Amino acid sequence: MKSPPETPLLDRVRIPADLKRLDEKELPLFADELRAELIDAVSQTGGHLGAGLGVVELTVALHYVFDTPDDRVIWDVGHQAYPHKILTGRRDRIRTLRQEGGLSGFTKRAESEYDPFGAAHSSTSISAGLGMAVARDLSRGRRNVIAVIGDGAMSAGMAYEAMNNAGALDARLIVILNDNDMSIAPPTGAMSAYLARLASGRAYQGIRDFGKKLTSYLGKSVDRAITRAVEHARGYVTGGTLFEEMGFLHIGPIDGHNLEHLVPVLKNVRDHGSGPVLIHVVTQKGKGYAPAEAADDKYHGVAKFNVITGAQAKTPANAPSYTKLFAQSLIQEAREDERIVAVTAAMPSGTGLDLFGKEFPERTFDVGIAEQHGVTFAAGLATEGYRPFAAIYSTFLQRAYDQVVHDVAIQNLPVRFAIDRAGFVGADGATHCGAFDITYLATLPNFTVMAAADEAELKHMVRTAVLHDSGPIAFRYPRGNGVGVEMPERGQALDIGRGRIMREGTKVALLSLGGRLAECLKAADELEAAGLSTTVADARFAKPLDADLVTQLARGHKVLVTIEEGSIGGFGAHVLHFLAHQGLLESGVKVRPLVMPDVFLDQAKPEKMYADAGLDAAGIVRAVFAALGQEEQVARA
Amino acid sequence: MKSPPETPLLDRVRIPADLKRLDEKELPLFADELRAELIDAVSQTGGHLGAGLGVVELTVALHYVFDTPDDRVIWDVGHQAYPHKILTGRRDRIRTLRQEGGLSGFTKRAESEYDPFGAAHSSTSISAGLGMAVARDLSRGRRNVIAVIGDGAMSAGMAYEAMNNAGALDARLIVILNDNDMSIAPPTGAMSAYLARLASGRAYQGIRDFGKKLTSYLGKSVDRAITRAVEHARGYVTGGTLFEEMGFLHIGPIDGHNLEHLVPVLKNVRDHGSGPVLIHVVTQKGKGYAPAEAADDKYHGVAKFNVITGAQAKTPANAPSYTKLFAQSLIQEAREDERIVAVTAAMPSGTGLDLFGKEFPERTFDVGIAEQHGVTFAAGLATEGYRPFAAIYSTFLQRAYDQVVHDVAIQNLPVRFAIDRAGFVGADGATHCGAFDITYLATLPNFTVMAAADEAELKHMVRTAVLHDSGPIAFRYPRGNGVGVEMPERGQALDIGRGRIMREGTKVALLSLGGRLAECLKAADELEAAGLSTTVADARFAKPLDADLVTQLARGHKVLVTIEEGSIGGFGAHVLHFLAHQGLLESGVKVRPLVMPDVFLDQAKPEKMYADAGLDAAGIVRAVFAALGQEEQVARA
Repeated sequence: MKSPPETPLLDRVRIPADLKRLDEKELPLFADELRAELIDAVSQTGGHLGAGLGVVELTVALHYVFDTPDDRVIWDVGHQAYPHKILTGRRDRIRTLRQEGGLSGFTKRAESEYDPFGAAHSSTSISAGLGMAVARDLSRGRRNVIAVIGDGAMSAGMAYEAMNNAGALDARLIVILNDNDMSIAPPTGAMSAYLARLASGRAYQGIRDFGKKLTSYLGKSVDRAITRAVEHARGYVTGGTLFEEMGFLHIGPIDGHNLEHLVPVLKNVRDHGSGPVLIHVVTQKGKGYAPAEAADDKYHGVAKFNVITGAQAKTPANAPSYTKLFAQSLIQEAREDERIVAVTAAMPSGTGLDLFGKEFPERTFDVGIAEQHGVTFAAGLATEGYRPFAAIYSTFLQRAYDQVVHDVAIQNLPVRFAIDRAGFVGADGATHCGAFDITYLATLPNFTVMAAADEAELKHMVRTAVLHDSGPIAFRYPRGNGVGVEMPERGQALDIGRGRIMREGTKVALLSLGGRLAECLKAADELEAAGLSTTVADARFAKPLDADLVTQLARGHKVLVTIEEGSIGGFGAHVLHFLAHQGLLESGVKVRPLVMPDVFLDQAKPEKMYADAGLDAAGIVRAVFAALGQEEQVARA
Repeated sequence: MKSPPETPLLDRVRIPADLKRLDEKELPLFADELRAELIDAVSQTGGHLGAGLGVVELTVALHYVFDTPDDRVIWDVGHQAYPHKILTGRRDRIRTLRQEGGLSGFTKRAESEYDPFGAAHSSTSISAGLGMAVARDLSRGRRNVIAVIGDGAMSAGMAYEAMNNAGALDARLIVILNDNDMSIAPPTGAMSAYLARLASGRAYQGIRDFGKKLTSYLGKSVDRAITRAVEHARGYVTGGTLFEEMGFLHIGPIDGHNLEHLVPVLKNVRDHGSGPVLIHVVTQKGKGYAPAEAADDKYHGVAKFNVITGAQAKTPANAPSYTKLFAQSLIQEAREDERIVAVTAAMPSGTGLDLFGKEFPERTFDVGIAEQHGVTFAAGLATEGYRPFAAIYSTFLQRAYDQVVHDVAIQNLPVRFAIDRAGFVGADGATHCGAFDITYLATLPNFTVMAAADEAELKHMVRTAVLHDSGPIAFRYPRGNGVGVEMPERGQALDIGRGRIMREGTKVALLSLGGRLAECLKAADELEAAGLSTTVADARFAKPLDADLVTQLARGHKVLVTIEEGSIGGFGAHVLHFLAHQGLLESGVKVRPLVMPDVFLDQAKPEKMYADAGLDAAGIVRAVFAALGQEEQVARA
């Protein structure tokens, strides 16, 4: 084990006020120490490293120049904020990052006054910053508001909406575009290409090729009036950059690792001018740590690692991840069906679509951080007879909810939603928790909603979704590795709206939707041992409900517990609603819907979170005994 | 009454194939007839008029030049598609627009093969079109895909996401930017100003003012390296328009009312070129009908009207609209509290914030069609101690769901959501129905969710929201006029999580959330008349539930019916969940949650829709008798 780095300058800085006492000439050395501390900390905790390495100098410059926390610095996404945390009173806890009870892996208001706006999803910072800037102006204040946003995050429409509004409001807002030509994956999209042109200094091909393109497009039959109109239009083709057209003063590009450039620019922007300004800063993800610089993903998210070699610890997995198994299942299907196409919103490796893309590059579409567009793009593909799979995490699908409702559900288009990261996700905490999708999807007419109990089920659900051309269908599965069941050679299409009984009993029924099935089976063992004959069933479908199964469970048992990896309003609510209208609730069966608790839980190991939520075997057993009441517990003793 | 216009040319055209038989020189006259027919039809039905008037020539040109329906023409939003409907086999039903059983007021796949993608929310067309274009290329087809999108719709991030992706994919896609400098209200935002500059032919101020702005911003202390860097940056400041930077060939501006310009440009684009192209067409909303041209909103949405005078029919209202009463209540509060600010996403008059803006222009923010940004912008205001009211229709709030979750709920920021158009909305149909907000909001931790039973309640809820600084709070209210109750001088803050009992009985309990309360009271009269003593309560809160009230109702009655203007998973689900865990369901009370049916309903009068859904007095009575079973019906006889 390497000893911690020596950091004499950094040791003198607990909060930004201390930083300001350093001489400007000491800042590069200070930044080196901060970088070394960051690497050492993340080598112990794992987490996001590459993004933080890229903004070490920018972090130092911002806190050196601006008067935080009174000046507001908002880090978009927030996963690049570890250096910021070290400088803002949290160094003593930096080795608790992403652990239970430790620092969040993102910015978080509850954690520090230096985090004026929490984040974890991308592209929110300009909107939040504009709100703060307007608040300042209404209060006739003078503070600075700085939003730091990556080039990848600029592919999201929300960032554009905010720029559009900021340009019109003309409020004094500083946007720092941190252009590292990478978000998680290399970014896609025209904006990214544009930034690359800006950063490289190449002049646009635009004007030079205009004439040529025009002729190819319009042919030679163009009448004179049109030619004149177009020539006239060319007259306007001049002026500012895209950001200036949006009303921003545009400064840059500036070398984001050169403090001698950064500090004076920031000072000048701080002391002069009005209206929105965009500073285009070019940085290198993974900067200053050779193994990160050399890695394809620039060490975006890492496990614990050896600082000297860069080798990451690998926990031996008992089973492959759900993500990988989803990708393999889809690839298998796509080999036989060329109508299958796949859409990801800037998460090719997170969703497994990188594997799909290797085999089917022309059928794989990475639309950028653009879930809204991605879903409606998939809907467009579906109208033409394709079988699109939109692979989007539960938490990120929230960003396309209106498109799911308006473009997919209302038109009853067969878009397939592969919803990864359903349920608790562990170290990423509340912002990434996949809690709400069952509720917000199952309430929609036309939708079929499935949840996989294990990896074999996932494979069957992929097959089921392929064949389901009559409307939208979603299947959700957890983060992490499968439970190790044997995989079928080929997925078999499930009967829509049919669950399955795993074991039969007479007194207690446990009806699981999704990954808690194994805990239900464990709970059943315990209940049997206590003399309570227990049925366990896997609902498979939150919608349509298996009416026969639910009726049978309610009629034939004293207690019916539903379990799901989601919040109130989802599967359990649909079961209760059905039973209520069947008149089965008042028949005496004690129904207990178990759902995630009504709080946003901080990061911890998922199994710990499920246990705390009462969604493990012990919690299920407790719920049964609570339902049966004291008498049963006495009888059991 | 004026007789229908004479339309000899139009009478020869039932579908676009007929149109192609006309001589190009006949098209202007044909367009005039189409316009006259449109005016006459809408004068009888009411509906969207101004937008359709603006695209009469464009509609004619598109169907004349392209081979619809094989070529795909996608109308963004779809409310401008009435002329398109007249030309595509639906003229015989055009006077049934927006009526029950009649034509939809928007494009709709189920209605015609000429509507390849339905719409009603804005800014989806480029995404859908890109999906179709990619599908065509995968299938090695040759059809054209044309998305027609307004300048207002370009303020939405989704359109930008789609442009960004289209530019990168370089698929052959034709985007027609219909620039009428109006969406519903005059559009706001930098993009709108940019388009105005393009359309007017004024050169950008950008380059000329750059030096001046730079000096003001950077001051005179700029060191030489920076100056050089910035000067260098100016070197790139040249090249294409914003759309060309995004990878589109940009043609225009073109006069959208001049068929001699439109037709040849469209023909050339059809026959030549590759990659995405944007044709900037300038039109005039309300064109060709003097009363519309003269109106502020250009007759965006109209009632039935007199064709000669333009005078719109007014149905005398018994009470002012909820929208107006919301605005008046908020204005009253804002006079005493300068922390109150209001945010609308391009719906100032629809939400009533135009009234608020007249009194408090500097505290009113129209962010454009940009719900995502709007919500997070409000969250930013909330972090600084302001009391933001985000006034957004239920259906449009779907577009900001991730921002509601991630930026507002997780951070527990006191953004106030004024949710208009909750429940069935009538003529606008399924796409505008406010069905899901109770479900998707009440599932979120930290949220308080209210629904107003009448206009006095709305006023109290505005007051309640003003004072609620401890977290996010939403209140929903229906489209249309209040029920005519006496208005209090001042709103009184409600106890959070407390409902109220309207009348007390012993056998049946009706627990209403929202605007169905009056129907519950009617139902109670009928039930009492049948010998069933009935309690009626107004829950006021979907979250937090009034545990005491719900317990009392369940314990003290034989039947408990919940009623809400929303879909499954909402209020009724929360009541059932609570009762289940309290062990009250198995006590014998017959609980029946009444919700909207699990289908997307087409347009009709709201009261008809509620009746069909069983959410009126008769439906409630039926539910009670069904719960009590045959024996009670016999006893009643």
